[in-house]
Amino acid sequence: MIPTPIYWNLDKNHLQLIDQTRLPVNLSHLVCLTHTDVGVAIKRLSVRGAPAIGIAAAYGVVLAAFQVQNAAHEIGLESIRKAIVDLSQTRPTAVNLFWALDIMKQVLDQNATKTLAEITQHLLEKALSIHNDDKERCQKIGEHGLTLLAEGDIILTHCNAGALATGGIGTALAPIYLAHNRGMKLKVFADETRPLLQGSRLTAWELRQAGIDVTVISDNTAAAAIRQMGVTSIIVGADRITKNGDVANKIGTYGLALMAQAHQIPLYVAAPLSTFDISLATGEQIPIEEHPPEVLTEQFGTRTAPLQVKTFVPAFDVTPNDLVTAIITEKGIIRPPYQSAIELLLS
Amino acid sequence: MIPTPIYWNLDKNHLQLIDQTRLPVNLSHLVCLTHTDVGVAIKRLSVRGAPAIGIAAAYGVVLAAFQVQNAAHEIGLESIRKAIVDLSQTRPTAVNLFWALDIMKQVLDQNATKTLAEITQHLLEKALSIHNDDKERCQKIGEHGLTLLAEGDIILTHCNAGALATGGIGTALAPIYLAHNRGMKLKVFADETRPLLQGSRLTAWELRQAGIDVTVISDNTAAAAIRQMGVTSIIVGADRITKNGDVANKIGTYGLALMAQAHQIPLYVAAPLSTFDISLATGEQIPIEEHPPEVLTEQFGTRTAPLQVKTFVPAFDVTPNDLVTAIITEKGIIRPPYQSAIELLLS
Repeated sequence: MIPTPIYWNLDKNHLQLIDQTRLPVNLSHLVCLTHTDVGVAIKRLSVRGAPAIGIAAAYGVVLAAFQVQNAAHEIGLESIRKAIVDLSQTRPTAVNLFWALDIMKQVLDQNATKTLAEITQHLLEKALSIHNDDKERCQKIGEHGLTLLAEGDIILTHCNAGALATGGIGTALAPIYLAHNRGMKLKVFADETRPLLQGSRLTAWELRQAGIDVTVISDNTAAAAIRQMGVTSIIVGADRITKNGDVANKIGTYGLALMAQAHQIPLYVAAPLSTFDISLATGEQIPIEEHPPEVLTEQFGTRTAPLQVKTFVPAFDVTPNDLVTAIITEKGIIRPPYQSAIELLLS
Repeated sequence: MIPTPIYWNLDKNHLQLIDQTRLPVNLSHLVCLTHTDVGVAIKRLSVRGAPAIGIAAAYGVVLAAFQVQNAAHEIGLESIRKAIVDLSQTRPTAVNLFWALDIMKQVLDQNATKTLAEITQHLLEKALSIHNDDKERCQKIGEHGLTLLAEGDIILTHCNAGALATGGIGTALAPIYLAHNRGMKLKVFADETRPLLQGSRLTAWELRQAGIDVTVISDNTAAAAIRQMGVTSIIVGADRITKNGDVANKIGTYGLALMAQAHQIPLYVAAPLSTFDISLATGEQIPIEEHPPEVLTEQFGTRTAPLQVKTFVPAFDVTPNDLVTAIITEKGIIRPPYQSAIELLLS
């Protein structure tokens, strides 16, 4: 079964999260009763992936509202507002977090004169709809992507753009889940994805949960796997896509794009419309966050490089648009030339 | 200073090894007084790298001989022969190990009628000469390779084909050491080289010891480093080179070759003549050893992939000859077409 990393319990009015820090060995759940619980879960990466963080934060605001349902009106409002600020400080670079919290704040402001119980219901409805919208978006990306797959395909993926990162069946993994559900035989190779190993820890885990044939490889085995194992396509997610179709995604994607080109197999990028940032003309304008050195040199509790050695640990790289075969969105698939296709898509 | 992983103490007649299992954090030495000490050091990877293993084993035979210098002649001979057998069983796939032990056995057989003290001296001389030959070979590879480098070059390397793997200044790293010694300014990027991390643990360590500017990257950062950091060439070692110039080397080399091609930078392979195996027509005939899954999934004492997940963990990949710009050997540099160049080289 495809895992559900975020689940709002309508009977008990609490939030249940898969504790992703305990994967891939232990499946355990965190029950969040307060917005502080949610904030801690976001901070310690129990929940991660841009859409998933936004959804969890929205539910965090709902929990804050439930906590003050019986408080004095002004004190209650103040408390919910403070929860929104608290939650916004948990992951300072997570755009979806601010986006979701902004929506929740609007709902709060628009209903500020109503009772706290009514406000709480409005906030809950909005959080559920943010969650559901994401679920539908994943489903649509999956359906469009499915048209690119065929029986017997062998797909290479990188990092985790799956159910664990979203409110639904993921982005890059969505077409794979739908294909599997429709009885298509597929094989997946999952790059372990250094330095944070989202591929081996998360992607391999969720695909196995769903009963999909997955093989973990080190990132540097990708080229050999493409050649020797007959990989038919590469599907990845995206962190940001610029006006011309350049794609920022997890470090390693650009290398995979070069391998795909050399082997004449398609590289597909699966991403919701919210990933497009048309304020940037090209990928060169995307600021690339760097991890602290320890993420590379001490990731496993063991020092794996000399003390004080220089490191270069970019979190993302940029794949130029001419290496991207197609971009799969919830509104359909676009192909080069991207600039006009993206304009049309967002219009 | 370039580290010396293998050192025979002529005063004390013992062998000193850098304990490579304690790198990159601690530099500590093992003193081997018996061939059993050497066998244990080889087995637990305190000494690794094909040439280094052969040299250490040769000294192991010398230690066995010193142990029995005052024994009865036949008992002494038998004891040395048994040591050779013991040492040959430490790393069953290490070709250089058998090669070095065969030479030592020949010396033993040819001098079997002499006194044990004389035999011991012959064995010591041969071990020193095996060691010295390797040192000279590295030096020559370095000098030839140096002609391919220029001031300001930025070199990417993979795995460890350095001093720690040989009796001298390495193969892939030899030109870099010589360039540095002659005052050339160079920068090196070292792939960490999953799954065993020889790049971050060993290459980065030895280059730093020698005062060379080295930056560690994850393997999947190589393409971004080539593009963003202006890498001018890639230099790697080789495990086996076939008659047509196809190169088997550490997993990841083939991907680097594709990146080099896309960026139009040279890929150089540095390897001694002993690496050529002209009994094989092409790289497709090279058997590729696979690591056990745990090497990928539990390398750091932490489980990083789901239990029982499928893995594909080849130790090597094959780079086709058309992606290899040049091969640097102790007898000079060869370029395509390789088949005729290799014939000439080995004639």
